[in-house]
Amino acid sequence: MGKKIGIQGIKGSFHHLVAMDYYHRDVEVMEHLSFQELVQKLASKESDEAVMAIENSIAGSILPNFALINEYNLSIIGEHYTPVNMNLMALEGQNIDNIKKVFSHPMALLQCKQFFKKYPHIKLIEDTDTAEAARRISEKGLQKVAAVASPAAAEMYGLEVLAREIHTIKSNATRFLILGREEKKPNGIKLDKASIKFDLKSERGSLVSILNILRDCYLDMTKIQSLPIIDEPWKYSFYVDVIFERPEDFTKAVDVMKLMTEDLKILGIYKNNLS
Amino acid sequence: MGKKIGIQGIKGSFHHLVAMDYYHRDVEVMEHLSFQELVQKLASKESDEAVMAIENSIAGSILPNFALINEYNLSIIGEHYTPVNMNLMALEGQNIDNIKKVFSHPMALLQCKQFFKKYPHIKLIEDTDTAEAARRISEKGLQKVAAVASPAAAEMYGLEVLAREIHTIKSNATRFLILGREEKKPNGIKLDKASIKFDLKSERGSLVSILNILRDCYLDMTKIQSLPIIDEPWKYSFYVDVIFERPEDFTKAVDVMKLMTEDLKILGIYKNNLS
Repeated sequence: MGKKIGIQGIKGSFHHLVAMDYYHRDVEVMEHLSFQELVQKLASKESDEAVMAIENSIAGSILPNFALINEYNLSIIGEHYTPVNMNLMALEGQNIDNIKKVFSHPMALLQCKQFFKKYPHIKLIEDTDTAEAARRISEKGLQKVAAVASPAAAEMYGLEVLAREIHTIKSNATRFLILGREEKKPNGIKLDKASIKFDLKSERGSLVSILNILRDCYLDMTKIQSLPIIDEPWKYSFYVDVIFERPEDFTKAVDVMKLMTEDLKILGIYKNNLS
Repeated sequence: MGKKIGIQGIKGSFHHLVAMDYYHRDVEVMEHLSFQELVQKLASKESDEAVMAIENSIAGSILPNFALINEYNLSIIGEHYTPVNMNLMALEGQNIDNIKKVFSHPMALLQCKQFFKKYPHIKLIEDTDTAEAARRISEKGLQKVAAVASPAAAEMYGLEVLAREIHTIKSNATRFLILGREEKKPNGIKLDKASIKFDLKSERGSLVSILNILRDCYLDMTKIQSLPIIDEPWKYSFYVDVIFERPEDFTKAVDVMKLMTEDLKILGIYKNNLS
């Protein structure tokens, strides 16, 4: 048996598909009901590594997940991008015109908003997991009810796909992080991406100074997100991802940034997988 | 009767409290079950203005809400900050040790995570609205069930507060936007804040150039968020909030930025309410 990999959701979920892709199937998957449980079980060594959704092109970052990585002192050891592929599925013999309710994860429903505008008689109901909704329909034999989930979920739980690829933005993808308890060791792989978090007092131009450092050190920023620190007016936390050719450029930038920011923390250094 | 103001959720929700605060009670509140419905009813003139949560210091921005503002061509005409105040409430005579399930909005549950760690026997269940959970307990006379909601919801639906202010970060606040169909007219009020969206091709330093323009025009950035455009590698959308002393500085910055970005859109110019 391979490593134990924590996922959010159950088998057939998008987290499960990512685990299969990333680890080439040679792993034991552990199902978790929440992101909180996912990181807890990793921190307490019940799993070896974990897969965690972190952003998509509709909703942006799932910032609370960065807070969880921080709180449990975990490290980002990899990333994986997977195309969104949402499908409407129900028990065999059901017809879309007779479907009254559709269950799925809020993000999945959001991605299929346009599709459901054509079916105003259908009530959309939020669920904790795409695959869980599919499994429940199958196990309980629910009539007139459908789920939005991956093709793998339809297959796994024996449901019929009523409509394929019903997500609005066809090029949409979700980014997942691979988490471990310790920093990634290069082991001959080129680690060319990093996620960092730091605080800044807002003085006009202070962020510009930081971005100038990144540029001068040949770092390319692929993501930036600010978060107000409410009890400290005009102080902000920033989450930034950078890619680089040479690890020493990143090290140099961090050394300078440590002097110019507060509470700088490296959340992980890993291999860039955005092609 | 005053203006018709759309809110997400029902009376007693945080959206309702913001509407009361912002408009000084002189309005008719229209309850909506989703953000989608909220903006639809505003666009179709069934409401005059609307209140919409947009970010808090735990989860960051609710980016899909910016997409809704954009899609329905609405305008941000104001903002309002309200402190988070989460309370555990149930039917009279219930005791926290006998509570088996707690219903609330996912964001509210997230904000009270630490509190519930002390009560591992309680199952947390996500709901569409904080006040809706409180109302259901009251109307259906649900025993051994509690809701997390505002003190106003407890009062409105006749529930007893079992624990006050159970949110972890006491200084946490939520930012709400006030939306209209047309741009805000100054009418003697100083409009000193704006929300803009633009796209950039990532060339090392291209964001730095934009931030330099903001600084040179005396604009202070209070928020920045990047969003990858997945089908166009290395192209990003940015959501930026700026504050300024003189409207002409903002106008000048926008004129320059239009030349250096793609699809620049002003989502609204309004009065800064962050003190």
